[in-house]
Amino acid sequence: MALRVLGIDPGLTRCGVGIVDIAPDRRATLVAVEVIRTAPELELAERVRRIQLGVAALLDEHAPSAVALERVFAQHNVRTVMGTAQASGVVLAEAAQRGLTVALHTPTEVKAAVTGHGGADKRQVTAMVQRILRLDAPPKPADAADALALAICHGWRGAPPSATGGAGAADAGLTPAQRAWRDAERASRAPRLER
Amino acid sequence: MALRVLGIDPGLTRCGVGIVDIAPDRRATLVAVEVIRTAPELELAERVRRIQLGVAALLDEHAPSAVALERVFAQHNVRTVMGTAQASGVVLAEAAQRGLTVALHTPTEVKAAVTGHGGADKRQVTAMVQRILRLDAPPKPADAADALALAICHGWRGAPPSATGGAGAADAGLTPAQRAWRDAERASRAPRLER
Repeated sequence: MALRVLGIDPGLTRCGVGIVDIAPDRRATLVAVEVIRTAPELELAERVRRIQLGVAALLDEHAPSAVALERVFAQHNVRTVMGTAQASGVVLAEAAQRGLTVALHTPTEVKAAVTGHGGADKRQVTAMVQRILRLDAPPKPADAADALALAICHGWRGAPPSATGGAGAADAGLTPAQRAWRDAERASRAPRLER
Repeated sequence: MALRVLGIDPGLTRCGVGIVDIAPDRRATLVAVEVIRTAPELELAERVRRIQLGVAALLDEHAPSAVALERVFAQHNVRTVMGTAQASGVVLAEAAQRGLTVALHTPTEVKAAVTGHGGADKRQVTAMVQRILRLDAPPKPADAADALALAICHGWRGAPPSATGGAGAADAGLTPAQRAWRDAERASRAPRLER
């Protein structure tokens, strides 16, 4: 049975939400993707409330069994960090209300999981997300790619090692990121072979 | 009719909540004071959820007409800032859900409002909160004094200037505490006049 993961790239102006099913063989399938937006002109409390309502609606509609949230570190713009953390707060509370644990992943972990290296740029992440999910075009809205990558990252990290298809000779010299990348390639190749 | 203000000094480990009634003559009366605590050992999502539930219960029980929250700026400890902002997020959402606007005040504004100077230390703030609320002892829990100061600050700032009673003859019968209080509220209004 697939693991359904809801990934969130938190923010007040744009809160990306991506929902992905991860099969036991690590094949990842897009379920839904959305960006919840709130206008900066709105009162702060109302903006946070709208993020809360939007996330709650997606949690109720898609009933994920895990939530993955971006772990935010210090950034240059303190106001942005605060807004991001305030949005994270309501996501955490809504998940806990539904008995869901929230896993935090750093941007570096997410990039490493989907592209094989932690320093990948946005374009590379988007391209790999498209391949991993076997989409005909880059995911839209474009700023939701990070949320999908988070969900994929979490689904793959959470899966038991045996689900990778066996730790045989091919795995011997691979780092976890390389294994993830190899899995991503396999996932992206699979459908083409079927066509 | 008194303005009931709920002040919140947000935090994950300790979230101070103070509720105060501010009469039209600016007399402030303690309604309730509490510190919602969550253990650092708990999962982050569960901690934020408990802050949310605690704040929601106090909002429902005391039905304030205004919420005042500490405006958090950059601090040295990024993790503390994030926890504070996450707690703030659920406070903002719960207030908005009840149609309440949340006013943000900086620590300096709050100190200036209750003590007359923005550089006051914690002991001075606690002592003035005790005097302003006419308490026999410093408010307990001790770490809730800031939340009460926030509520008082907001109540005084929100009241129309005419409610101060004006200077002159009206001052004649004031006690030292009332004069200190009057001076404090003037200090709190000053920044607004400068804008």
